[in-house]
Amino acid sequence: MPIVTLTTDFGGADGYVGAMKGVIATLAPEALVVDLAHEVPRHDIAHAAWVLRSAAPEFPPGTIHVAVVDPGVGGNRHEVIVAARGHFFVGPDNGIFAHVGRAAEGCWTIAATGFRRPVASATFHGRDVFAPAAAALARGVSPHQAGPATKLQGRLPWPDPAGGSGVVVHIDVYGNLITDLPPPDGGASRLYIAGRALPLARTYEDVAVGALCAYVGSMGTLEIAVREGSAAALLACGRGEAVRAS
Amino acid sequence: MPIVTLTTDFGGADGYVGAMKGVIATLAPEALVVDLAHEVPRHDIAHAAWVLRSAAPEFPPGTIHVAVVDPGVGGNRHEVIVAARGHFFVGPDNGIFAHVGRAAEGCWTIAATGFRRPVASATFHGRDVFAPAAAALARGVSPHQAGPATKLQGRLPWPDPAGGSGVVVHIDVYGNLITDLPPPDGGASRLYIAGRALPLARTYEDVAVGALCAYVGSMGTLEIAVREGSAAALLACGRGEAVRAS
Amino acid sequence: MPIVTLTTDFGGADGYVGAMKGVIATLAPEALVVDLAHEVPRHDIAHAAWVLRSAAPEFPPGTIHVAVVDPGVGGNRHEVIVAARGHFFVGPDNGIFAHVGRAAEGCWTIAATGFRRPVASATFHGRDVFAPAAAALARGVSPHQAGPATKLQGRLPWPDPAGGSGVVVHIDVYGNLITDLPPPDGGASRLYIAGRALPLARTYEDVAVGALCAYVGSMGTLEIAVREGSAAALLACGRGEAVRAS
Repeated sequence: MPIVTLTTDFGGADGYVGAMKGVIATLAPEALVVDLAHEVPRHDIAHAAWVLRSAAPEFPPGTIHVAVVDPGVGGNRHEVIVAARGHFFVGPDNGIFAHVGRAAEGCWTIAATGFRRPVASATFHGRDVFAPAAAALARGVSPHQAGPATKLQGRLPWPDPAGGSGVVVHIDVYGNLITDLPPPDGGASRLYIAGRALPLARTYEDVAVGALCAYVGSMGTLEIAVREGSAAALLACGRGEAVRAS
Repeated sequence: MPIVTLTTDFGGADGYVGAMKGVIATLAPEALVVDLAHEVPRHDIAHAAWVLRSAAPEFPPGTIHVAVVDPGVGGNRHEVIVAARGHFFVGPDNGIFAHVGRAAEGCWTIAATGFRRPVASATFHGRDVFAPAAAALARGVSPHQAGPATKLQGRLPWPDPAGGSGVVVHIDVYGNLITDLPPPDGGASRLYIAGRALPLARTYEDVAVGALCAYVGSMGTLEIAVREGSAAALLACGRGEAVRAS
Repeated sequence: MPIVTLTTDFGGADGYVGAMKGVIATLAPEALVVDLAHEVPRHDIAHAAWVLRSAAPEFPPGTIHVAVVDPGVGGNRHEVIVAARGHFFVGPDNGIFAHVGRAAEGCWTIAATGFRRPVASATFHGRDVFAPAAAALARGVSPHQAGPATKLQGRLPWPDPAGGSGVVVHIDVYGNLITDLPPPDGGASRLYIAGRALPLARTYEDVAVGALCAYVGSMGTLEIAVREGSAAALLACGRGEAVRAS
């Protein structure tokens, strides 16, 4: 049973997610549709990119991940299928695949009938392009038949990490700051951010309630948290903030 | 595998949605339960009516749609099954089926044992009436066995559209205003709302960030949006606001 | 097809729920994963405990319920599997199973390989411990193989109810106050809370819009609501507030 996951900023109040599920249920009845996250902050492409990075790799090979955070719908960005590490990713090429598409083995424009509705609306490609494309993949149609091969263009709104320093790449619902810094070698004992030096702990309970700590997070990179509180609020930091360990 | 969709204002913090899923899993183990939307604004029947209108038709024939936004639970409104355009709709007759039930081929009161718990609570018909009724339909029991045939009574809180003008029928999570006006014929070039005349565009990117535009939306009617912003906030408009194209 | 339900405070914006679903899809492809509630207020263990209490019993015997509201992750609380009333419960032993575990037939520490990742992160046991443990149960492995038998330690943050009086055990999304008081016998006609005496009604429509009422709720205990409003806001009451009927 092929798996199709859904990640959007559509929220849980409207019919948009339901319409996509209906299209997939109609075109690929054997597919199992799995909700990843629908409360991505509106239009926040980089947020969705990290959701894919943290959740998609846990699924079995062959899983089809549809991601729709698409403020440029109907405009110039391309609609694409990306093949990477044994998974498929379907959505707009606007940076949403910047993490998961780094090791892309292939990328195709969604152009062919059978991969999109003959007449697509200008504002709801989730229903009219991406759900039909995912259904085609779920039925076993090769992505080569979707359209011409292309290259991913979308970028995240900050530079790629340089050696030694890093940035906050994601802020989660708890207000934890997730960085792209790998775990420190034996010498490092402090993480520096926003003019503060934080001790490296193992988990939240190693510090007092309300205190800041840094630790190796569940994605294998350094994170910053306040025990039972919000590091984002306490530090007044946003995504892209520079961090350094030493 | 019969599909049962769920649309409620129960939110994602309580056990209400889960209880309904448990009842269906117990009574109709072969059914596939699909979440449409659970963050419908509390008690907002007209909002849920539009969610059904926009999502339900995408599902395959025979799908059973349960909708529970039910401030009058335990009171005078009836509990019904509606058959329309090859789908079933199950919920309170309070206006929630005003859109999807326009072409109803049948409507039945949920009265028979087998379609509801013998002793139903006065405040949670989602669990005690509508989930059991949906499970009965999913098992293939005819809706004729649910109870006496009746007619849908529920109405939306605004008049049916008159020729030429229309109203805002839905405001989505982006603050887009969705109207019931069909696309303009060749002559129309402006949409009028709240004392403003808006140009007709094709999609959001046709205007500057922060600018208002009108366009033919994904439901085939005119919509009003602010590119990467909220038209509802900018225009200070609510549902039911009059619109006109010319 | 074994059912695995998920209850968390992870929300719908991050990849945490998706990562758990991916782990289960990989380790137990035949399992059916069902979302109960992911918008449990952050770190609110007692809230999640009631969600389980109200939803889990509706599922068929053998269902596996994973619950992750876990501010002490990586610290001293144990990771457990609980068997109670024919269901399994998997999560941290921090009080989250205080309701559903009252009639526990067994409780085991999650220690064995096959029930957890060999190297578990310190901050995401949902992915690294509880999802693998649920997958093992879904594959039919006996909970006896998970680790040593133990006893549930977690408690709710208020005393067990004494005869005659009770407390507010849950506040739902509507602001309804749910108590642990059983329905009154013939003599009782008032519910006392926060210095007020409320009449006992049958359902919301028995009182005027905006008025307070008490009634026998869907869990078989007394509840307090404001018709089309919030009793929690009107009474300014919190969980743990004392109630009495007479």
